[in-house]
Amino acid sequence: MANFEKEVKNNIFGFGGKNVDYAKYFIGESYLKSLVGEDDIDVHVGNVSFEPGCRNNWHIHHNGYQILLVTDGKGWYQEEGKTVQLLKAGDVVVIRGGVKHWHGATKDSWFNHVAITKGNSEWLEPVSDEEYDKLG
Amino acid sequence: MANFEKEVKNNIFGFGGKNVDYAKYFIGESYLKSLVGEDDIDVHVGNVSFEPGCRNNWHIHHNGYQILLVTDGKGWYQEEGKTVQLLKAGDVVVIRGGVKHWHGATKDSWFNHVAITKGNSEWLEPVSDEEYDKLG
Repeated sequence: MANFEKEVKNNIFGFGGKNVDYAKYFIGESYLKSLVGEDDIDVHVGNVSFEPGCRNNWHIHHNGYQILLVTDGKGWYQEEGKTVQLLKAGDVVVIRGGVKHWHGATKDSWFNHVAITKGNSEWLEPVSDEEYDKLG
Repeated sequence: MANFEKEVKNNIFGFGGKNVDYAKYFIGESYLKSLVGEDDIDVHVGNVSFEPGCRNNWHIHHNGYQILLVTDGKGWYQEEGKTVQLLKAGDVVVIRGGVKHWHGATKDSWFNHVAITKGNSEWLEPVSDEEYDKLG
């Protein structure tokens, strides 16, 4: 069993279904459980699980922001032009609007975060295997 | 050791200091660790721990909302005129603006939630011992 597979699949906010709606913006398999998605609340709160090696494409949040609350496993976060950050349970990331970035699991571990998102996302190019394989 | 004391004091987002700034709006001792509190992000994210018996006063969020993500222990949530809800790890509560409510620990358990708050709070009367003692 891969690192943190049990913890992520039994994470506190629940392991979601396959993240099919956003699959085209991810490399590898991710899982999404929506926790808050109400018309009259201006943030969406989702619980996102990544299998080892899974990461989302570079993307930008517009007219808002995203906050990541890491609950389990090991992952990476990178803003364009900056060094990658290793994330672990308890870490909090604030991503401001307009900042190009990606996040995802490490190569050998599952990863889970709650994402609090305001605004809309602009999806860009994938994090290539070449970029990703350099990490760690 | 009271129920869930160890879990709350070792909770994933960290056990905060005594919640002195808001102590006048609480009965019992609470602890606050601010996770996100930035001028350019319109929500505050705080990790709040309650000792057994601790609860906040009735209050209302204006010009916003509050979302509670329960991480540990057992607590109660009540909206005015409605029955009290028992909360446990993994539960999510959405509190709309204008809704009078309170939340806190049960009598025999520590309680911990992450609170995502937008807007300002209007603090009202305490949840009296008479009201609280009827619960459970």
